[in-house]
Amino acid sequence: MNNNTGAILVLSGPSGAGKSSLLNEVINDIGECYFSISTTTRAIRNGEENGVHYHFVTEEEFKKDIEEDSFLEYAFVHGNYYGTSLKPVKKALSEGKLVLFDIDVQGNTLVNNRLGDISTSVFISPPTLSELRKRLQDRSTDTQDVIQRRLEMAKKEIQRISEYDYLIINDNLKESAEILRTIAKASRLKIPDNEINEFVQKWENIDL
Amino acid sequence: MNNNTGAILVLSGPSGAGKSSLLNEVINDIGECYFSISTTTRAIRNGEENGVHYHFVTEEEFKKDIEEDSFLEYAFVHGNYYGTSLKPVKKALSEGKLVLFDIDVQGNTLVNNRLGDISTSVFISPPTLSELRKRLQDRSTDTQDVIQRRLEMAKKEIQRISEYDYLIINDNLKESAEILRTIAKASRLKIPDNEINEFVQKWENIDL
Repeated sequence: MNNNTGAILVLSGPSGAGKSSLLNEVINDIGECYFSISTTTRAIRNGEENGVHYHFVTEEEFKKDIEEDSFLEYAFVHGNYYGTSLKPVKKALSEGKLVLFDIDVQGNTLVNNRLGDISTSVFISPPTLSELRKRLQDRSTDTQDVIQRRLEMAKKEIQRISEYDYLIINDNLKESAEILRTIAKASRLKIPDNEINEFVQKWENIDL
Repeated sequence: MNNNTGAILVLSGPSGAGKSSLLNEVINDIGECYFSISTTTRAIRNGEENGVHYHFVTEEEFKKDIEEDSFLEYAFVHGNYYGTSLKPVKKALSEGKLVLFDIDVQGNTLVNNRLGDISTSVFISPPTLSELRKRLQDRSTDTQDVIQRRLEMAKKEIQRISEYDYLIINDNLKESAEILRTIAKASRLKIPDNEINEFVQKWENIDL
């Protein structure tokens, strides 16, 4: 019974914390994974692939999922629906995969409310604000305004680290990767509440 | 900052679940450990060693620890004090060790209340009641009465598995050891609340 079912690993952290590099380091060592991606009703664009960039669905399908309470969260933006559907998540879990979520603090709360029994959360933080500023400036994809906004967001997010199971202060990629590897392996060992209850009941009903 | 401080791993489970065999399998792979042992005021017996079987202390020392609220729990039995002192635990933690507790469900609650931020708990269960009965009978150290009492205790303890972070159903020693190894390694990655708060405050006080 141990370890047959999938589990969830939530990764949060400011842009520039190094989540993607960290994941790249460990992804081949932590068993079969599924990256949770958003579901949308908007038209697929050139170069996009269904199931890679988004799950592209019809408005009818999306609304059916809403009715079935399958969304962690969703929004209607500029005439299109966007959301995080639990359907592909549950499919991946049933296949024994580790489902990876790259979401913010609010998203983590939502995952916890719905699937907290099999979910482990990790906050990945840059070591210092000046290091974060440097990283954001070095990648030179953002304007100064955007960088300033990202720093402010980081400051806010970091205030909620205590909501996470683990904190990784990412000042050394190799060291942090080793930590994430260990956490990811352990996260797979969570057993769903319903399986625990089944096991407990089996013992409860025994006559000694 | 990651992983400098010690952490706590609580192991619970009925007699016959295989805790000792499991620990023996993993103890050399999980870094420096300290086994929490009880403190007592009773006289040391032939063959016993201070710091191995018990921490032997004077009544004066014991009472001082009580006054300083250093005991997780203690009892006065047949004229002697027995208890679990947090002093050696805190010393081991400050040395970066993983502190192992072999305690029951009540003990786990007490550890959680005092040191929950750095504590990980594992319940080790035999797969079935008949397997547990067989194991207890095979070691032939207990009378039928004692075995019956152990089975009843096991049944009660198992009802509280959901209070634990992990459940290991120990039907295969090698597989269970691999699971415990992973959990133990991850348990070391817990960061104490005060260090988290320090980190958060460092960011809070920054002017952007």
